[in-house]
Amino acid sequence: MVGAGQLARMTHQAAVDLGMSLRLLAESPTDGAALVTPDVELGAPDDLAALTRFAKGCDVVTFDHEHVPTEHLRALEDSDVAVRPGADALLFAQDKLAQRRRLQELGIPVPVFAPVTSVADVARFGEEHGWPVVVKAVRGGYDGRGVWFYDEPPDSLPGPNVYVEAKVPLLHELAVQVARRPSGGTRAWPAVETVQQDGICVEVVAPAPRISPALSTDAERIALRVASELDVVGVLAVELFEAPGGLLVNELAMRPHNSGHWSIEGSVTSQFEQHLRAVLDWPLGDTSPLAPVTVMVNLLGGRDTDLTRTLPPALEAVPEAHVHLYGKEPRPARKLGHVTVLGDDVVEARERARTAVRVLRGDDE
Amino acid sequence: MVGAGQLARMTHQAAVDLGMSLRLLAESPTDGAALVTPDVELGAPDDLAALTRFAKGCDVVTFDHEHVPTEHLRALEDSDVAVRPGADALLFAQDKLAQRRRLQELGIPVPVFAPVTSVADVARFGEEHGWPVVVKAVRGGYDGRGVWFYDEPPDSLPGPNVYVEAKVPLLHELAVQVARRPSGGTRAWPAVETVQQDGICVEVVAPAPRISPALSTDAERIALRVASELDVVGVLAVELFEAPGGLLVNELAMRPHNSGHWSIEGSVTSQFEQHLRAVLDWPLGDTSPLAPVTVMVNLLGGRDTDLTRTLPPALEAVPEAHVHLYGKEPRPARKLGHVTVLGDDVVEARERARTAVRVLRGDDE
Repeated sequence: MVGAGQLARMTHQAAVDLGMSLRLLAESPTDGAALVTPDVELGAPDDLAALTRFAKGCDVVTFDHEHVPTEHLRALEDSDVAVRPGADALLFAQDKLAQRRRLQELGIPVPVFAPVTSVADVARFGEEHGWPVVVKAVRGGYDGRGVWFYDEPPDSLPGPNVYVEAKVPLLHELAVQVARRPSGGTRAWPAVETVQQDGICVEVVAPAPRISPALSTDAERIALRVASELDVVGVLAVELFEAPGGLLVNELAMRPHNSGHWSIEGSVTSQFEQHLRAVLDWPLGDTSPLAPVTVMVNLLGGRDTDLTRTLPPALEAVPEAHVHLYGKEPRPARKLGHVTVLGDDVVEARERARTAVRVLRGDDE
Repeated sequence: MVGAGQLARMTHQAAVDLGMSLRLLAESPTDGAALVTPDVELGAPDDLAALTRFAKGCDVVTFDHEHVPTEHLRALEDSDVAVRPGADALLFAQDKLAQRRRLQELGIPVPVFAPVTSVADVARFGEEHGWPVVVKAVRGGYDGRGVWFYDEPPDSLPGPNVYVEAKVPLLHELAVQVARRPSGGTRAWPAVETVQQDGICVEVVAPAPRISPALSTDAERIALRVASELDVVGVLAVELFEAPGGLLVNELAMRPHNSGHWSIEGSVTSQFEQHLRAVLDWPLGDTSPLAPVTVMVNLLGGRDTDLTRTLPPALEAVPEAHVHLYGKEPRPARKLGHVTVLGDDVVEARERARTAVRVLRGDDE
């Protein structure tokens, strides 16, 4: 696995169960996954020599992020490394404008969008489709970075490689995860509701509690279609807007994703195990939920979060909490971990998970 | 953790969630846990220099087996290492005769037993209490080793350090696990039924399906009493016989135990996480079961078990199976892993878990 953040860390835990040996390409020996895994190669994901060294002896190469340049992915493929998902698929998780165009071609609903090269392009788009508009980085944005909202034409573009789209008046934000094997088998988890604050996912409720079964099926169908049309292998997370006119695809990630952390305890097969099974072209696992409701709340660093001090009282406050810490130095707003609670009632499970997170952050002190 | 077998391997997975860093004392770099953990010290558990080197810098030292000599445990304690459970408690998991005597003193029911130093002692015991009798090694027996059945006086004792006890005509074999903190807090999982073949645990059904709630409560009460009377810290597994006259304690283990593997998926808090929380004197987690029934079936090596070949078809056959492999070279009858299935019905869940194990062993080929 290229990358050694929390996704690789949790993938290692799943790999252990299946008797696999996960090798990591880590940027630093203190990366969350590098701290807990013995087979670590140090190197940057945009360094082809490091990638090649790392890939040697791997049955399959997969990813915990989208930072490997396309030309390096192709170079690995050309030297007969099994890169999964492949470069052609990953492009659509890396390049948002290419993704919007491709999905539009396929008739999969996306927000109205346009390429822009000047402020005038943004102004024209706003006049045609209405204000506010959203300008987005074509590559590299995440967790609220690379997204800018404008109520009127801006003085300048926020970056060199951006595009514009309509700001969708949304009812809910949803996500669906599916897994797909190279030989074609697929499995979908139920659609979940995601709650964002300042562009960062803060909570996930699974299954999505406030949408109809028909809409949930629609979301699943869209995700399965994206997976097969783009030839995605592994886990695909599709983030969707529920807008008044129906569902619109917002983002794609071709790897385990924050919206699927609930599946570790909440589903028979976790997204991490499923991703490994899928990229190895092994049979996929059962994706049924284990409880009527599973709530996952992200732990973002507070002003003085000190987990060595706050973990015991958090465990005391919520004995049924599943706490996952990522081994990172606390910093304000940094994703340090997450808490999952299973239950029968959304409001109650959410309150319990939020309580654990509040104590972990040190907000109550 | 002293020892690097499957218990340490699964403890590492739990430690990762809590942001802990687990150091192992492993006998070999190919021990199951050493394969998946970065912080490994090599050394034998009866080598005090290795133990001392290993313990340096650990907040707490705990165990995946009972092989550390009592005098070494005391030496560590004397040099201010936090050994949990402590030497005084561990003695009763290491020395079965001392354990039988102590439990008898406490009025906790055990099979009738006697120390023996000669064949005549065994003969006398058999005449007094009836044949058959069981002769057991005082130290070191497990998985059917160190246990001998006699229908009549033997020609010689099977070992130098043995005792004798009555062979109990049992209805079921049960196990209860409890966790206890140094400061006294305890939690119990529901009693489970264990199925043994040739002295090796092959299946566990949780909660125990064929006993009354009153008996289950009795079993729990016995385990909690043992934990507090013997000052056990960490997870304590108590194996019990359900005999016509009531419950009798068979074995004690003061660590995560095969009878508790079901708790990884089947309970809110797994025995591995709970053991870590307990030895650190942290608040203990919720031990509620997540499904009406959880069945765990051990994967013992077959004649030609080759898991790299059998794992994919096993996953295909039982998509809801939770497979745990221990990273060991297959050998006939060796514990290579286990499979857990959650369900509503004992017979069905057991059949599904057995199917996965049968395919993994290669029995169907």
